[in-house]
Amino acid sequence: MLHGGASEPLQPRARRSHLSPQPRALDSTQYCDGPPAGILQWKVDERAQRLAPYKSWAVDGCGAGDDISQLVLSTKNGVLTAEERDLVQLDATELVKRLSTGQYTAVQVLTAFLKVAFRLQQFTNCLTEVFFGEGLDRAKELDAHFAKYGKVVGPLHGLPVSIKDHILLKGHDTSAGYVAWAGKKIADKDAVAVHILREAGAVFYAKTANPQTLLALETENNIYGTTRNPFNLKLSPGGSSGGESALISGHGSPLGIGTDIGGSVRIPAAFCGLYGLKPSVARLPHAGLVGSHDGMEAIIGAVGPIAKSARDLNLFCKVMLDAEPWFLEAPLLRMPWREDVVRGVGMPEKLCFAILWDDGVVHPHPPITAALKRTKQALEAAGHEVIDWEPVDDQFAWNLIHKLYFLDGGKEYRETFAEGGEKPIPAARWIMDQIERPHEPYTPGECFELNAQREAFRLKIIQHWNATKGPKTGRRVDGILAPTHPTLATPHRTIRWWGYTSYWNLVDYPGAIIPMGKFDPEAYVETDPMPAPRNETEKFISSQWSPPTYSGAPVAVQLVGRRHHEEEVLAMLNKVEDALENYKKSHPM
Amino acid sequence: MLHGGASEPLQPRARRSHLSPQPRALDSTQYCDGPPAGILQWKVDERAQRLAPYKSWAVDGCGAGDDISQLVLSTKNGVLTAEERDLVQLDATELVKRLSTGQYTAVQVLTAFLKVAFRLQQFTNCLTEVFFGEGLDRAKELDAHFAKYGKVVGPLHGLPVSIKDHILLKGHDTSAGYVAWAGKKIADKDAVAVHILREAGAVFYAKTANPQTLLALETENNIYGTTRNPFNLKLSPGGSSGGESALISGHGSPLGIGTDIGGSVRIPAAFCGLYGLKPSVARLPHAGLVGSHDGMEAIIGAVGPIAKSARDLNLFCKVMLDAEPWFLEAPLLRMPWREDVVRGVGMPEKLCFAILWDDGVVHPHPPITAALKRTKQALEAAGHEVIDWEPVDDQFAWNLIHKLYFLDGGKEYRETFAEGGEKPIPAARWIMDQIERPHEPYTPGECFELNAQREAFRLKIIQHWNATKGPKTGRRVDGILAPTHPTLATPHRTIRWWGYTSYWNLVDYPGAIIPMGKFDPEAYVETDPMPAPRNETEKFISSQWSPPTYSGAPVAVQLVGRRHHEEEVLAMLNKVEDALENYKKSHPM
Repeated sequence: MLHGGASEPLQPRARRSHLSPQPRALDSTQYCDGPPAGILQWKVDERAQRLAPYKSWAVDGCGAGDDISQLVLSTKNGVLTAEERDLVQLDATELVKRLSTGQYTAVQVLTAFLKVAFRLQQFTNCLTEVFFGEGLDRAKELDAHFAKYGKVVGPLHGLPVSIKDHILLKGHDTSAGYVAWAGKKIADKDAVAVHILREAGAVFYAKTANPQTLLALETENNIYGTTRNPFNLKLSPGGSSGGESALISGHGSPLGIGTDIGGSVRIPAAFCGLYGLKPSVARLPHAGLVGSHDGMEAIIGAVGPIAKSARDLNLFCKVMLDAEPWFLEAPLLRMPWREDVVRGVGMPEKLCFAILWDDGVVHPHPPITAALKRTKQALEAAGHEVIDWEPVDDQFAWNLIHKLYFLDGGKEYRETFAEGGEKPIPAARWIMDQIERPHEPYTPGECFELNAQREAFRLKIIQHWNATKGPKTGRRVDGILAPTHPTLATPHRTIRWWGYTSYWNLVDYPGAIIPMGKFDPEAYVETDPMPAPRNETEKFISSQWSPPTYSGAPVAVQLVGRRHHEEEVLAMLNKVEDALENYKKSHPM
Repeated sequence: MLHGGASEPLQPRARRSHLSPQPRALDSTQYCDGPPAGILQWKVDERAQRLAPYKSWAVDGCGAGDDISQLVLSTKNGVLTAEERDLVQLDATELVKRLSTGQYTAVQVLTAFLKVAFRLQQFTNCLTEVFFGEGLDRAKELDAHFAKYGKVVGPLHGLPVSIKDHILLKGHDTSAGYVAWAGKKIADKDAVAVHILREAGAVFYAKTANPQTLLALETENNIYGTTRNPFNLKLSPGGSSGGESALISGHGSPLGIGTDIGGSVRIPAAFCGLYGLKPSVARLPHAGLVGSHDGMEAIIGAVGPIAKSARDLNLFCKVMLDAEPWFLEAPLLRMPWREDVVRGVGMPEKLCFAILWDDGVVHPHPPITAALKRTKQALEAAGHEVIDWEPVDDQFAWNLIHKLYFLDGGKEYRETFAEGGEKPIPAARWIMDQIERPHEPYTPGECFELNAQREAFRLKIIQHWNATKGPKTGRRVDGILAPTHPTLATPHRTIRWWGYTSYWNLVDYPGAIIPMGKFDPEAYVETDPMPAPRNETEKFISSQWSPPTYSGAPVAVQLVGRRHHEEEVLAMLNKVEDALENYKKSHPM
């Protein structure tokens, strides 16, 4: 079932030259034949060899339309026990509780996740660095500690956590999706977030795929190829944290770290039916991420959790900020986590939400609009007020953030491509084709001017928000509900509009993803048809709409709060979920 | 006493051409003849005309060595009453208390400060825009409000506050020290900090001088000439907030706003015997400051109060942050002011301080070392622990921050000079002569690299601090006591080393100034001689040391805390002052 031979001796750190620089077209026949053929053969072979000892865990083939997320949980061949099947579906909060009481051992928990992770890798190509043995060793240590002292080492004792490829994890490669870097960035220390997780008792066992350049909302690179969505292999799990979302949504990991500079936590979470939080810049530890443009500060990414429950987002943030990371990493804000706020302390019972139905550039596909409508009805039924959010200059915002992404005209990206002898993946080509002055970097004065434009825009949105007022409650808007993307999980290599997520990076507002079930084309009744396209982008995305395409794709909405209001966002998320839960009783989906 | 005729009709906003582009040499004979002749005659004339109605408030001549701060408080000519003389010496906290109980009226308070401000202007050349009438009108309104409703409009009801020239104040010019901008930047709105002060009930009546470029630690420009220190006119009040420090220390204002990107709040406070706080970047409102390099973010300045008491620093910050300015200005951190921390809540009784005796580049003059020694003794007597702070790469830090100041090679400064037909003031020439590549701006990639160097440096200092440990208390260092500058207030045009202040801008740590009396060459006994110079800068500064030069100059130390620990810095400041106060009982100065 695994491709690549396991007989060749493992040469993990040697640089090889068997690379074919062209991304291959995705071959639909590959879906059931294991991961697509790797581009950088030695890295793919190395991964295969590291997985080979576990090949008895594999499940047998599938059809292209199969829901892999169910297949990997199968207990049929006797590998996965029923207890393991149930265990991997628990959220992190429940797992750490059971680990802390001794109900589960760390080895038991990790073993279950390893089995499922192995199977997900078969189909989704979500893993990069694989070190199951190291994870099991650590789990044994933790169990020994618990047996000896009767207590946990920290709040995440024994919890398996997956790590996105470009985040430093001691002893492992950080190729970060670049051929040039493969085998050359073996981390000699952990990223700060990884360090804190490790101290808290987390167990690491694999890293997960991210796209070349990281500036892509799908996950493909010239090392491993394309990562797929476990709910429908023809669809992307999103990006750039698509390895995480594929792995976690398929229950191969209970919790993961993503990073988001334009949607890279939120899009994967939404495309895979997970919870995700993109915090404001510098709230969560960010040091130790490997990528292009180190030192670029015009737009800064944010580390955020991808999880299976809202409360796990809180758990992650609490562990991070209880570690006082501002004494470990210079740019971090000294803002302790206010868990009481997440629990709703100080927040009125009835809130005022606004809904962004359409950003004025690309109208969302019908299932997104339907999800927003349902959310509105549920919130109103729960006594909250819901008004419209008037979009402000969304195309301008994209044009501006795009300039800020490429202050050097894309020079550093092109140099790294050249160094690895690779070409841009289609998503990178798409975004780099939009560069205004590819061969004339902005001057410092022009960079200052762009920063000033960004600040003027941020002020405009602050004032726009300040001016909102619910006619009933008299409240200023508490949170905005919005599409995460105009479509559900996109077919590979077709994602075209970042505006619904990158807008909030530009203004630096936190955004959380609320999953709302899966799309079933059989049950679907068209209710919110696409309007006539207003531009080429919308024309393309409008033309994509076809219910069968999105079979099994998760549906989600994005909840946006004000800057540095992460705790309030999670408190509101709880309120939205409560409202949806109650609404379901009288209005089944 | 006032120079310039009052007969010419006031044409405040017309642009004139009577400018002589060369800064004139300071003529010592001018000290007692009113402000030095202005360079941009129409602005100086306009100011003179605005002051003319109040000329009966003037005091008669002085000797060059006179302590102007006493002279301006004289009640001899019957203009200033004894009550007014006492009133202007109160701190802001006491004034707002008396205003809020009706003990003083706003008109009464403002009138007293106007008289003293007028007199200070006679000698120190500290004012730029003058609008006493507008201030009196506002004071009358506030008194009417109080009379009608029996309550104040806000926590600063009736408090006169002075504003540094480059900060937008509605209806007034913001020439900001540039000839090119004179008369052309009439503010159509208040800066955010000014807006908050105004809403809180503050009364504005004058703006104060800042140097050309604002990148100078003394105060001189080609519009108004040089600003002088009221304790010794031969000395600078510091810069860039030197108009503020001259005015406040002479009791012409109880509280003012400065800005600090390299020492511009702390140096003026130290040189004038005042309290000053440079907070971390983005803690206090910063929008609405006019200067070069709008949008430059490699090093960002901070607004901070300059005041007559430690508690006034707290008052200023509390008023600013109680207004939730993060909903008014995009970059601000959502960090409410924790007044309980300032009062010492949660802080142990006994702390561990470190003292930076010498930064490895320029050893401080003897009175600075003596002040640090006395502080150490006082703290130890109070039971605190005091260890040495090992300096880390102070020359490197200067070289780096200097590059960050001039990413464009100085282009924008030179263009603004040219636009106004003016030349750089000596302090601007000094700093611009150090530009590494004056005609080759850094590329975006080089800018990213410099940011990364800055972040690496910040991390190094975090780790250095984390590694400190008082052998007795076992505590990590709570705060650092350090020189503000290697000398007391400098003779005009001789300030040469920024390292003791700019270092903390580079790492973005808050710093407060603690005044410790005035230097008296008559009573001085040499105790801490300068060592042999290690470099040209130190050679120059060492050669300046001569007790008579600094007659009357205030002595101060700087207290530095960790990033975003403004409240802790003020709490520590209280502890240092308590210790010094107690120590004085057994060890008079």
